[in-house]
Amino acid sequence: MTYRIEKDTMGEVKVPSDKLWGAQTERSRNNFKIGAPASMPLEVVYGFAYLKKAAAYTNHELGVLDIEKRDLIATVCDEILEGKHDNQFPLVIWQTGSGTQSNMNVNEVVANRAHQLAGKVIGEGEKTIQPNDDVNKSQSSNDTFPTGMHIAAYKKIMEVTIPGIIQLRNTLHKKSIDFKDVVKIGRTHLMDATPLTLGQEFSGYVSQLDHGLKALENTLPHLAELALGGTAVGTGLNTPDGYANLVAKYIADFTNLPFTSAENKFEALAAHDALVETHGALKQLAVSLNKIANDIRLMASGPRSGIGELIIPANEPGSSIMPGKVNPTQCEALTMVCAQVMGNDVAVTVGGTQGHYELNVFKPMMAANVLESARLIGDACKSFEEHCASGIEPNHDTIKQLLNNSLMLVTALNTKIGYYKAAEIANTAHKNGTTLREEAINLGYVTADEYDEWVKPEDMVGSLK
Amino acid sequence: MTYRIEKDTMGEVKVPSDKLWGAQTERSRNNFKIGAPASMPLEVVYGFAYLKKAAAYTNHELGVLDIEKRDLIATVCDEILEGKHDNQFPLVIWQTGSGTQSNMNVNEVVANRAHQLAGKVIGEGEKTIQPNDDVNKSQSSNDTFPTGMHIAAYKKIMEVTIPGIIQLRNTLHKKSIDFKDVVKIGRTHLMDATPLTLGQEFSGYVSQLDHGLKALENTLPHLAELALGGTAVGTGLNTPDGYANLVAKYIADFTNLPFTSAENKFEALAAHDALVETHGALKQLAVSLNKIANDIRLMASGPRSGIGELIIPANEPGSSIMPGKVNPTQCEALTMVCAQVMGNDVAVTVGGTQGHYELNVFKPMMAANVLESARLIGDACKSFEEHCASGIEPNHDTIKQLLNNSLMLVTALNTKIGYYKAAEIANTAHKNGTTLREEAINLGYVTADEYDEWVKPEDMVGSLK
Amino acid sequence: MTYRIEKDTMGEVKVPSDKLWGAQTERSRNNFKIGAPASMPLEVVYGFAYLKKAAAYTNHELGVLDIEKRDLIATVCDEILEGKHDNQFPLVIWQTGSGTQSNMNVNEVVANRAHQLAGKVIGEGEKTIQPNDDVNKSQSSNDTFPTGMHIAAYKKIMEVTIPGIIQLRNTLHKKSIDFKDVVKIGRTHLMDATPLTLGQEFSGYVSQLDHGLKALENTLPHLAELALGGTAVGTGLNTPDGYANLVAKYIADFTNLPFTSAENKFEALAAHDALVETHGALKQLAVSLNKIANDIRLMASGPRSGIGELIIPANEPGSSIMPGKVNPTQCEALTMVCAQVMGNDVAVTVGGTQGHYELNVFKPMMAANVLESARLIGDACKSFEEHCASGIEPNHDTIKQLLNNSLMLVTALNTKIGYYKAAEIANTAHKNGTTLREEAINLGYVTADEYDEWVKPEDMVGSLK
Amino acid sequence: MTYRIEKDTMGEVKVPSDKLWGAQTERSRNNFKIGAPASMPLEVVYGFAYLKKAAAYTNHELGVLDIEKRDLIATVCDEILEGKHDNQFPLVIWQTGSGTQSNMNVNEVVANRAHQLAGKVIGEGEKTIQPNDDVNKSQSSNDTFPTGMHIAAYKKIMEVTIPGIIQLRNTLHKKSIDFKDVVKIGRTHLMDATPLTLGQEFSGYVSQLDHGLKALENTLPHLAELALGGTAVGTGLNTPDGYANLVAKYIADFTNLPFTSAENKFEALAAHDALVETHGALKQLAVSLNKIANDIRLMASGPRSGIGELIIPANEPGSSIMPGKVNPTQCEALTMVCAQVMGNDVAVTVGGTQGHYELNVFKPMMAANVLESARLIGDACKSFEEHCASGIEPNHDTIKQLLNNSLMLVTALNTKIGYYKAAEIANTAHKNGTTLREEAINLGYVTADEYDEWVKPEDMVGSLK
Repeated sequence: MTYRIEKDTMGEVKVPSDKLWGAQTERSRNNFKIGAPASMPLEVVYGFAYLKKAAAYTNHELGVLDIEKRDLIATVCDEILEGKHDNQFPLVIWQTGSGTQSNMNVNEVVANRAHQLAGKVIGEGEKTIQPNDDVNKSQSSNDTFPTGMHIAAYKKIMEVTIPGIIQLRNTLHKKSIDFKDVVKIGRTHLMDATPLTLGQEFSGYVSQLDHGLKALENTLPHLAELALGGTAVGTGLNTPDGYANLVAKYIADFTNLPFTSAENKFEALAAHDALVETHGALKQLAVSLNKIANDIRLMASGPRSGIGELIIPANEPGSSIMPGKVNPTQCEALTMVCAQVMGNDVAVTVGGTQGHYELNVFKPMMAANVLESARLIGDACKSFEEHCASGIEPNHDTIKQLLNNSLMLVTALNTKIGYYKAAEIANTAHKNGTTLREEAINLGYVTADEYDEWVKPEDMVGSLK
Repeated sequence: MTYRIEKDTMGEVKVPSDKLWGAQTERSRNNFKIGAPASMPLEVVYGFAYLKKAAAYTNHELGVLDIEKRDLIATVCDEILEGKHDNQFPLVIWQTGSGTQSNMNVNEVVANRAHQLAGKVIGEGEKTIQPNDDVNKSQSSNDTFPTGMHIAAYKKIMEVTIPGIIQLRNTLHKKSIDFKDVVKIGRTHLMDATPLTLGQEFSGYVSQLDHGLKALENTLPHLAELALGGTAVGTGLNTPDGYANLVAKYIADFTNLPFTSAENKFEALAAHDALVETHGALKQLAVSLNKIANDIRLMASGPRSGIGELIIPANEPGSSIMPGKVNPTQCEALTMVCAQVMGNDVAVTVGGTQGHYELNVFKPMMAANVLESARLIGDACKSFEEHCASGIEPNHDTIKQLLNNSLMLVTALNTKIGYYKAAEIANTAHKNGTTLREEAINLGYVTADEYDEWVKPEDMVGSLK
Repeated sequence: MTYRIEKDTMGEVKVPSDKLWGAQTERSRNNFKIGAPASMPLEVVYGFAYLKKAAAYTNHELGVLDIEKRDLIATVCDEILEGKHDNQFPLVIWQTGSGTQSNMNVNEVVANRAHQLAGKVIGEGEKTIQPNDDVNKSQSSNDTFPTGMHIAAYKKIMEVTIPGIIQLRNTLHKKSIDFKDVVKIGRTHLMDATPLTLGQEFSGYVSQLDHGLKALENTLPHLAELALGGTAVGTGLNTPDGYANLVAKYIADFTNLPFTSAENKFEALAAHDALVETHGALKQLAVSLNKIANDIRLMASGPRSGIGELIIPANEPGSSIMPGKVNPTQCEALTMVCAQVMGNDVAVTVGGTQGHYELNVFKPMMAANVLESARLIGDACKSFEEHCASGIEPNHDTIKQLLNNSLMLVTALNTKIGYYKAAEIANTAHKNGTTLREEAINLGYVTADEYDEWVKPEDMVGSLK
Repeated sequence: MTYRIEKDTMGEVKVPSDKLWGAQTERSRNNFKIGAPASMPLEVVYGFAYLKKAAAYTNHELGVLDIEKRDLIATVCDEILEGKHDNQFPLVIWQTGSGTQSNMNVNEVVANRAHQLAGKVIGEGEKTIQPNDDVNKSQSSNDTFPTGMHIAAYKKIMEVTIPGIIQLRNTLHKKSIDFKDVVKIGRTHLMDATPLTLGQEFSGYVSQLDHGLKALENTLPHLAELALGGTAVGTGLNTPDGYANLVAKYIADFTNLPFTSAENKFEALAAHDALVETHGALKQLAVSLNKIANDIRLMASGPRSGIGELIIPANEPGSSIMPGKVNPTQCEALTMVCAQVMGNDVAVTVGGTQGHYELNVFKPMMAANVLESARLIGDACKSFEEHCASGIEPNHDTIKQLLNNSLMLVTALNTKIGYYKAAEIANTAHKNGTTLREEAINLGYVTADEYDEWVKPEDMVGSLK
């Protein structure tokens, strides 16, 4: 491999000739061999590309950057956003907690690529634009990294998380309508209870997701607040007047998302409660999705020795040893995602607690977890919808049989003969292995006609329809 | 001790004569000797008192309960709310996960006490009102317990959590104004950085709490939704027409809080995402408070061999062996609370994931954790405000000395001579143990006059003021 | 109420006349109104009683405390251990994180009670023994509190946790033998799989608990290490030669437990990894118990519309609205405990991470969580054993029926006709709603005799018996 | 792209021609587009390679697989272990929770590659060896996946985690000896306390890591237990006599690690408490490392306006805006890793709780988290040691100055003049901004000579040396 020499304030560093990055990126690559290489999410890099471009436009508009430099910076940022330089960002999450080295990675790549675009050879001559003085102008790692991670997280939530949840929510809603007349046994404490419709059961899932979406949306205004303009400690040192608001406006324009300048930049650097807040909502969705997926696999269990009320799509052979087995694999993938999101929530929480003075230095870890959770939930909802939820069908025979067996239909008699006599009927039928109807009549509490009129499952589900 | 005989559908049980509870409470007391006795929060019991009274009014208004029974029930509920029967609720959190036994505890106490109020002797004669058929009319444990826990949690948040946070927030806000001209060294990565004012630092804390309050308030509409009217599985079986909305209205009236009937009762029984959501906001506040308390104790550390920028009240001798020691004890209490709330969040989350079919059976545990966290945060904020935050004063001498020592004032030169020469000045001064001014002039990058004009800490904090 | 005046190094404090505590306890009571009063676990106070007595004996033996003082201190400590002064410890968990105020509470109570025992009146005359100079001699809060919490936690684990787990383990083991010939359908992914015996299923639970007990026992040597003798920062300042080892020996004698002096006192004050380690094992047990309780309630679900393979004891009426309902309430209590322990683990973990320099100041919170988890697991295992596990019986009819229905018996044919033909048989039977035997013969892959010889559930469970 | 047709029991699937995988891998790839592709850790695949080879040897030795097939299988497994087929394993963590599809991925790759090795063309002719009947012989996903993950985790801990921790431990131990005479101020509650040596402080860190290593090693016997031989539900159906022990012996031989056959296979499939246990120890190490890294960055804070007692290596420019800044970046990377491990612990815990009946279906998620944590801790310890710990030096001037300033040296007088007079001296000096010596003499409690003899920091650190 061949190398060129790059410099920073600490001296010279050898960098592979075919790479666009510079001295500080290379130092970081060597100093932080922790976990898989290049683990810093590309989404964060893209967030940087948006903000570097916006900063260049703002700096130009406010008179501190000439138009040639602005355009060079913007062009490289656009190339980055097109995915042309994905392999130029080799750094890991587990670097400095401010993400300084990833900021410098972007600064260096932009500067070197701009040099190329200006028709020069990297490593030869004065850099056409300087990583720190031009690309990073009016910026600090301390305000760029949180800006980059907010952009990345917000976009992920809008593009992956919410669409995935809505896709699943809509299918569950459709099912709740399709199944609105399928009367089935209810179960509380896992035990037989009074009936409801399968549609009602699914409506509960829809309601959970609707509340979860609302909760997630509630967190977006905080996430829309950008730190940019705070520079090193939140005071905005070395920024021109009007910079913070204008750069936020440019970012909003470029991303087409409602970003604003954080009202308080000291919070925006020193604490990442916005990520904690957003991830809290993702965790709530994980809780809901876990319940839903778990219910569905319980109801689809069997096919012959389980509950068997639902039929779910058979997507793959289920066992390498048991021929003909079909498993609720989408439920499993989704619940594994839920467990991961619950864990990630603790990582984000712990990171959030430990800012010191003017800076929280758990930024890359927090960002990576939010992005992972946001993607996993969105992807898993989509996968679950396409390969499971959309194909769910009731197993009418089983549903009917389990409904009619149940002793809990006796509850319908409470308002006729009182709780205590009703209990006696159920207990007797349970002990004798008989039906409620038999024992109700035997005990003399109701006539056969009364029983048939009063105990109708389909009348027991209706009050709230 | 003397006993009387109480009965339920499973048979007879001996209950201490001086207790108002009945057979099912006594069974639970004997069957669940887990942890400290009577751990079920009284707030949940009071929540039940509100809802039992509201149910009695609703049942009467809808024609299924006579006025004498309504008034007896309401009278006992009022007595419970006055704290007259606190020792009649001996059950623990670790009982059935639906809280059925605590529902029955309330039903039994109301029935027996009503019997007394009707001039009878408990255990003699037919019960004046029946626990199941009258007190529990149009109800199930499955909808009452979640209703009781929502009432309890909502009240706690309104009465303890939010006032505590606001009290602290207001004091921190006052301090941020008081300290608006105290220029001090900033610190990022725990290392010296560019200056800011102490007031700016405190404004970040205020902003965190403002966002946290907003996040907490965002969760209240979900928490305001009441399950009551869903009865056993969410269908509203055995309730009269119009019951759910009317009973929610009565609860809103009695508590003076904006409770509503949950639109979807199936969710309201089978999932407690509302508690997960609310606790998520409490956890976010814990994250914020941990940062704030930690910063304050770091800045107050010393008095002679630490940072020493803040002086905090000396409330008690700090050491049993080191004479004259004063410690940031309120910070410690608060951060311990924060750690507990983070833990409680996981307990609530895990409980939330594990509903099955029509019922989540982690209700008492989830309720107890939400109530504990809500109280601890409110109490700890109040305590911290009264015994620490309100008395914080800057140690001006130390602040000035640490500010003027710092090498990071060199950042002001970036826009004049560029990042790289500025770095050279700082590195040289660091190596030589000299001042920036000396080395800036020695290196010939600025004149003495330029230095004095350009490097003024008080000019470095202003852009965002 | 009447008061007397008590003094400490900060001045005078009014204390209720009928209380034994002194100035610092009273200050703490007023300064930390957070959560329920007197939340500091009594077990920690008892731990202090052991160590104060041991310190008095050691101090005397090493020549720094006269025998009269030793005996007075020892007598009061014995009284505390007999529970005679339980109401003299009003402080909360949420105080200073070193527990200094609880140490002083004990010092003050011992000193004042000793004054009484010496025939004096509290508040009159010079104190017979001094709280700091005598009761606290050769000690600091920083080494006493961790010692007290280790004693408390170790005792709780030996007296409550381990006996509870063993009680449950032994019953499950007995059941696994009782059920060794009950062949039933296995289930993987909640779906029908190849058979096993009910005894084998229960043997897995036993194995989990055996591993969990081993894991818990592995943590005890670390927990047995006592900080006492480290005093303020771990150096043992102000202790006589030989103190640390001798005082540990006395504590071991008084408690009859294998306590030792921590080899490294700096760790023992500044970090509480021993609590983190022990709680980690408690959490592992919670994971195991959750699996076990969950399985049992799934298998006991029904009685008619669930799985119904197990019959569990009916301990109480299960529903306030559904007559005759019986629920797996002990499973619910146990799984709620498990969720709490998982949450507590995070609280302990977070507390453990945040020691600074020579002291971790999350001690009371960490201790309280370990004690709660240790008790809850022990109590819940005992309750679950007595009211559920000991009474579990197989429902033979249901077990047989579900076994014989299953299509997964086809797996026995893999080694005879290959996986692919076996799969074809199962798939065909599933599609047609027929039996494996019918389709195996129809497809011509086996004869009736071969089928009957090869597919015997009881032969499919045996390889590992 | 060109495709070939592969088949499984559900029918035909188009697979890219250049890939070795078969129908089930391709189905999974299409059905589970969740998160980044190919996220299933390669370490698990390698674990499979060991076990497939071991199974082939065992099957041959026990007479159920001919030697040609054995050798073909073994050859492909060796190729996999050499990294030759890394790009043939495209599946994700978020698939079926049993990992069936990754088992089939390995089975299919081995079968197709064996076909090639046998001189055939994939997709043409009868497969030389069958994925299910040969490669998977005497196996099920349900026992192979847990075996593969135990092998992977055990190896990672032996090869990465423990060496990394030991490397750091040894350097900290060396530092504790190097610094054994550096007397410095102690700090408790972040406040000045009595002195100790820097070596003593570091010895505490060593003790933490020694305890953590012991805790980690305690978990290895459970992790060494392999499920292989349990097949579908733990009974060992379709395995030849003696298989389980022999296959474990082969795995032990091939890996040179002390693997054993799990005594109870039912646990080994249905619960993954061994992973929970191992991860618990990793989490404990994270707690310890967080304390250590945090202390070091606090002591290294400054350089001029912080504590400044330690000098740590300057590895990279610390700020993109503040010239000359050096930050404790290795501490930050390490503490971010700690936060992640704490979060992963919850994910593993949650996954561990949710096994149902004979199978836990959170296997891939649990395995991935254990592997990530094990690697991150090992890598981060190594990085921290190389780039930070090994270069730590005391800043003697600062240490001396902070020591001599401290008021807590007064503690040395406790045993001479009593706690209360000592406190008066300290309080007076604090109030007056004077020295202890001045006030001690002024107050008349000691003479100048006594003070100088009694208050020597170097004498205050010695009791426990």
